Amino acid sequence: MIKIKLHKLLFYKALLAVFAVCNLTGFSTASAQAKKATWIYYPGDFEVWLGNKMQNRRTDRGSFLPVLWKMDSHYVLVEFHKDFDVPATEEVKLYVEGIYNAKVDGQAFIGYPKSITVPAGHHKVSLKVYCQDRVPAIFVQGKTVVSDDTWLVTFEDKEWIDATGKVSDKSGTTYLNAGAWNFNDPLSPPSKFRLPTLPQHAVKSEKKANSIFLDFGKETFGFVKLHGLKGKGKLHIYYGESREEAMSVEHCETLDELDINEPVKKDSVMELSKALRYVNAQYDGGISVDSVSMLYEYAPLTQRGAFRCSDDEVNKIYDISKYTLQLATREFFIDGIKRDRWIWSGDAYQSYAMNYYSFFDSPTVTRTILALRGKDPVTSHINTIMDYTFYWFLSINDYYQYTGDKSFIKQFYPRMQTLMDYCLARRDSNGMMAGLPGDWLFIDWADGLSKKGELSFEQLLFCRSLETMATCAKLNNDAEGAAKYQALADELKAKIFKLYWNDQKHALVHSLIDGAQSDNVTRYTNMFAIFFNYFNEQQKQDVKTNVLLNDKIQKITTPYMRFYELEALCAMGEQGYVLKQMKDYWGGMLKLGATSFWEEYNPDKTGADVYAMYGRPFGKSLCHAWGASPIYLLGKYYLGIKPLTPGYQSYLVEPNLGGLKWMEGTVPTPDGNIKMYCSTSQIKIKGDIGTGLLRIKSKSKPVCKTGTIQAKGNNGYELSIEKGKDYIVSYSAL
Amino acid sequence: MIKIKLHKLLFYKALLAVFAVCNLTGFSTASAQAKKATWIYYPGDFEVWLGNKMQNRRTDRGSFLPVLWKMDSHYVLVEFHKDFDVPATEEVKLYVEGIYNAKVDGQAFIGYPKSITVPAGHHKVSLKVYCQDRVPAIFVQGKTVVSDDTWLVTFEDKEWIDATGKVSDKSGTTYLNAGAWNFNDPLSPPSKFRLPTLPQHAVKSEKKANSIFLDFGKETFGFVKLHGLKGKGKLHIYYGESREEAMSVEHCETLDELDINEPVKKDSVMELSKALRYVNAQYDGGISVDSVSMLYEYAPLTQRGAFRCSDDEVNKIYDISKYTLQLATREFFIDGIKRDRWIWSGDAYQSYAMNYYSFFDSPTVTRTILALRGKDPVTSHINTIMDYTFYWFLSINDYYQYTGDKSFIKQFYPRMQTLMDYCLARRDSNGMMAGLPGDWLFIDWADGLSKKGELSFEQLLFCRSLETMATCAKLNNDAEGAAKYQALADELKAKIFKLYWNDQKHALVHSLIDGAQSDNVTRYTNMFAIFFNYFNEQQKQDVKTNVLLNDKIQKITTPYMRFYELEALCAMGEQGYVLKQMKDYWGGMLKLGATSFWEEYNPDKTGADVYAMYGRPFGKSLCHAWGASPIYLLGKYYLGIKPLTPGYQSYLVEPNLGGLKWMEGTVPTPDGNIKMYCSTSQIKIKGDIGTGLLRIKSKSKPVCKTGTIQAKGNNGYELSIEKGKDYIVSYSAL
Repeated sequence: MIKIKLHKLLFYKALLAVFAVCNLTGFSTASAQAKKATWIYYPGDFEVWLGNKMQNRRTDRGSFLPVLWKMDSHYVLVEFHKDFDVPATEEVKLYVEGIYNAKVDGQAFIGYPKSITVPAGHHKVSLKVYCQDRVPAIFVQGKTVVSDDTWLVTFEDKEWIDATGKVSDKSGTTYLNAGAWNFNDPLSPPSKFRLPTLPQHAVKSEKKANSIFLDFGKETFGFVKLHGLKGKGKLHIYYGESREEAMSVEHCETLDELDINEPVKKDSVMELSKALRYVNAQYDGGISVDSVSMLYEYAPLTQRGAFRCSDDEVNKIYDISKYTLQLATREFFIDGIKRDRWIWSGDAYQSYAMNYYSFFDSPTVTRTILALRGKDPVTSHINTIMDYTFYWFLSINDYYQYTGDKSFIKQFYPRMQTLMDYCLARRDSNGMMAGLPGDWLFIDWADGLSKKGELSFEQLLFCRSLETMATCAKLNNDAEGAAKYQALADELKAKIFKLYWNDQKHALVHSLIDGAQSDNVTRYTNMFAIFFNYFNEQQKQDVKTNVLLNDKIQKITTPYMRFYELEALCAMGEQGYVLKQMKDYWGGMLKLGATSFWEEYNPDKTGADVYAMYGRPFGKSLCHAWGASPIYLLGKYYLGIKPLTPGYQSYLVEPNLGGLKWMEGTVPTPDGNIKMYCSTSQIKIKGDIGTGLLRIKSKSKPVCKTGTIQAKGNNGYELSIEKGKDYIVSYSAL
Repeated sequence: MIKIKLHKLLFYKALLAVFAVCNLTGFSTASAQAKKATWIYYPGDFEVWLGNKMQNRRTDRGSFLPVLWKMDSHYVLVEFHKDFDVPATEEVKLYVEGIYNAKVDGQAFIGYPKSITVPAGHHKVSLKVYCQDRVPAIFVQGKTVVSDDTWLVTFEDKEWIDATGKVSDKSGTTYLNAGAWNFNDPLSPPSKFRLPTLPQHAVKSEKKANSIFLDFGKETFGFVKLHGLKGKGKLHIYYGESREEAMSVEHCETLDELDINEPVKKDSVMELSKALRYVNAQYDGGISVDSVSMLYEYAPLTQRGAFRCSDDEVNKIYDISKYTLQLATREFFIDGIKRDRWIWSGDAYQSYAMNYYSFFDSPTVTRTILALRGKDPVTSHINTIMDYTFYWFLSINDYYQYTGDKSFIKQFYPRMQTLMDYCLARRDSNGMMAGLPGDWLFIDWADGLSKKGELSFEQLLFCRSLETMATCAKLNNDAEGAAKYQALADELKAKIFKLYWNDQKHALVHSLIDGAQSDNVTRYTNMFAIFFNYFNEQQKQDVKTNVLLNDKIQKITTPYMRFYELEALCAMGEQGYVLKQMKDYWGGMLKLGATSFWEEYNPDKTGADVYAMYGRPFGKSLCHAWGASPIYLLGKYYLGIKPLTPGYQSYLVEPNLGGLKWMEGTVPTPDGNIKMYCSTSQIKIKGDIGTGLLRIKSKSKPVCKTGTIQAKGNNGYELSIEKGKDYIVSYSAL
């Protein structure tokens, strides 16, 4: 109970902090300041720069442990411009990250002016900025001349002059709209961005002569703070997600080793934030410490989604899922908070899905997508993993479906094309993608999973990626590209069924080796093919029986792939079965004392063995974003709410109690929420956006005073939901 | 006379300074410290980083004026490693630019160790470094474990582990040899690199109440220094390459505007170095200045080449050429010192050629080539100019011919390939390269020069570039690439002669417009085809008469293209004619008081009009590297010394007095010099390298005591020159 109280209090404090720190952190409510100036930069560059910063904070037992793939950089020289109609002469203040020139109609001001005068009339205002260490960025504040994402930017303006002084034709220059987030304070440029912190105290503290051992009551994240530190000598801090880990000075995954030399008592905050529940501070005899606390570091996002139901265990699973996602949502959606703290495309792909049913924070999605993509040239798969490249494509499709944001796709379609070019160039003679040197074929952490030959799983994701390219090509009026990608997708899909489908096994087999089907059937390809809707009805049923519900097929032990396994079953209406699985699996972690969900959970393991992974006793992350999938499953397949057309302009509500007596919840959309309550006899619903379609099964015709129920046969009924209107439907569940 | 004295004194001081500052500046004699540790980095990255720094120092009347093309960045995350056989346990000191880890055999040390212990035996030592603002670089100093260019580096090590902790196969990782220069002091990392400076004083100074006007006696470059500055108010410094420019506060190209607030007298040095001969300092009444001097900033390179002859004017042209090249040789070979101070590929290409007959400083060549090339992706031609892309390829061919350095080509062949891919993708349906949007077709500054259609000049350079690719492909054992590039070159060459050669005009015409030859014949294509040796003998003679010596063909007014025009004539044995041209053209500038050679010189212009260009009264640069070509012409076509096989393993000496009574000189090579004296009756020669072939014409058989003269018919004789041996040949010039 104490844990829950702390959590609620913290959440309240965090909400207050959102408003207090908004201008310092860059997280602020943008709408209030619309039409005002904001810091702008080359789109995608802040994301790459911040990604470098964040991903280079990992340490492994005190040693710096950076990523294993290429890190890109921002463009160091950027031109910004916009044409303005200025009604009366105005003073325009300039704030710039870097050295720069400022021009009106091509005429430069001398030096680095802090303010310029723009006369009345139609004028082109431009700045050109060079900055090596930070992202070139500008904040321009006049009355009408203000910087925002309608400015155009380029990294090569090609503005040369001939011997007579005539300026070049610049038709070869590509301009994009400037990137912006919510850096609305001229004195808080993008480079100053930091996540906010709040003091947090241990629930238990054990102090000895030369050590302090703390329990913060639950998994958390932040900067350890030593109060009243004094003396000279070595001080070690051993961090633990489990008590065992913090106690194990030899094997805990993260630690700090400090040389202390403080003649006078002072407070000292660690340089790097860390994941922890337990802290074990040990120090030499010459050192004294009064007490230890921490600064909780968090992304100040609003939880817009909600879910409650008749089952307390499910409610707890939902709450802990949300807390898990909250912890793993930082500058970006990261994998887990203890170890990597990197942006992994496959992990992030799941966080996006959960985000659409919780924060609905688009900037964190696009920021993560852009940081993952980095810059050209493409020299390896995203995170070096072939499947992670494909999830990257899929994430853009999902983003568009949930948000309806076309402008993002327009700006970054060229980066999609070059990444797809990379894939297409790596196809084998069979037109499929097998692992080449340097490719990591991940799929999942699973004992003995074969990566040999052409894997059906990779081809399936490749096919879906090509479909995404076709969609995005159409959005960008690239008819030729759309036709090309669609043809490639169609051809590949036909090949997948021709080569991998096995009539005896009633499933897609795992791989082709030298052109022949392997004996192996795994869950992965088959479950994805279900919710990709690639199977016909018969195949679906075959796969459900022969693969998904077949205990002889190798079991999945990561929440990562359980996400998709359960999604496939939900997509086939097996919410009842899935609810039991959820209670077993996530409930199983809760029974082991989890305060956030894990990277991997194998019910067969016991004792401290549950913490081991990667050949290390505490290698496993106990707070991994991919553990939080109940958020998504409960929102999309129990509340049953999802967009039918991009950005929820139309959407489906197909509640499925899966054995619950009742449930209620909120699903966020780009413009307001959809709220619903559902029991076995009543449904209440209200949507702030678009047109909804409520689809229910009822023994008899449901009753609704504010809408017209349409019978669809086979006990099915539909009701159209208009924006802003309350609906109460009485029905009788089958 | 004063000027010469100053110059000599300066040169002596500069030589002394080379040794004094070598460890501070990075310029030092590498051979003395061979086998010792040096700072290493990802090859090409320091060059790109320094290029950004240098090219962002341009100002235009006090406004920042950066380049118009894409600026790239270094890789921010780099892995360095090498395997060592360590005879006995040793302490190894580590100096690193950035945050890092250090490992022995994959085991990381905690924190950022300044020193590590490497035990006896075979060990892999590795460091992985992240640095955003500077180039990740390391200096490793043990007894046997030392950093040098035999270390391997990568920007993506792809070192992942599976769930059991097993490390990935890394066969997909591309490693290059580390880049290094001569940063041999652990406390002077690459990021601290600065050119050295020396105090320099005006030869004339005119002080008034609120101004000081100075003449430094000749064109120079550096930081203006104000002595005894005191008071409050505005201070302006107007720089002039000419007296007129410094006097013209409204139109001088460069200036400094300073807000002074100095209650106590102090000396103040300007932040940016500038080109100048004259300085006009003007200040408000509240300000006083005791005197003004400057700090001459220079690249401390050794002038290894030399030339003297019986004609004093030619000697002066040679000296001023060398001084011009010295001034324009800075961190890189730049265009000119007043205005752009950028690295322009076409300009640099000529500096390389001059360098082979003067400094023979390969690091400045490769540094310039790498800074120009930058990183992938290629988004435009080099400097946006199509011809400049081709010069870049040609520069690598020349570099290999003069230095024999295969390792440079091996490291950077992939960057050659991707740049050529860019070109190949931009061919038209005719297989030729016409200007596309964003392409600058430069050729030369010449009134009314048409850039329409497919220009023969661009195709000719494209063809030569393809030949270079074929050569480099062979050097890299890329037989397939070599065949491909050679076939493309052959095809294009045939097309050039088929489409552009005009039998009536006895020349290659300027362009094809809609498939038809334009009426226009220009010198450019025709003169390049001569020294590319693309013509047969008849065509050469035709072109000489009908183009090169034909006054009706538009004259060239830039030293830039005069370089090639005179080279073509020299290649045809017209040294006598060229010597007269040289004395007319370069002598013409001297008669106008030039102390360095200009960007453009048109003998038809007079008065202050000679300084105008780009529609600005002082737009012209009076110290432009491309003005210094006599260095190259005199060395290659008068002394007549050039490599026959790469790196002077064999070379040709074919002196041509061109009407001079005598000449003597030194031509530097990768390993020592070739010295020669030649009069109409005697030749003395000694070479430190390879095998030379002296080729002379003589009325009767020449006499040489130390070698055997071979008669070759038609008054031609040859003598083989062995390394280290003195030869004196008596002959009788025709």
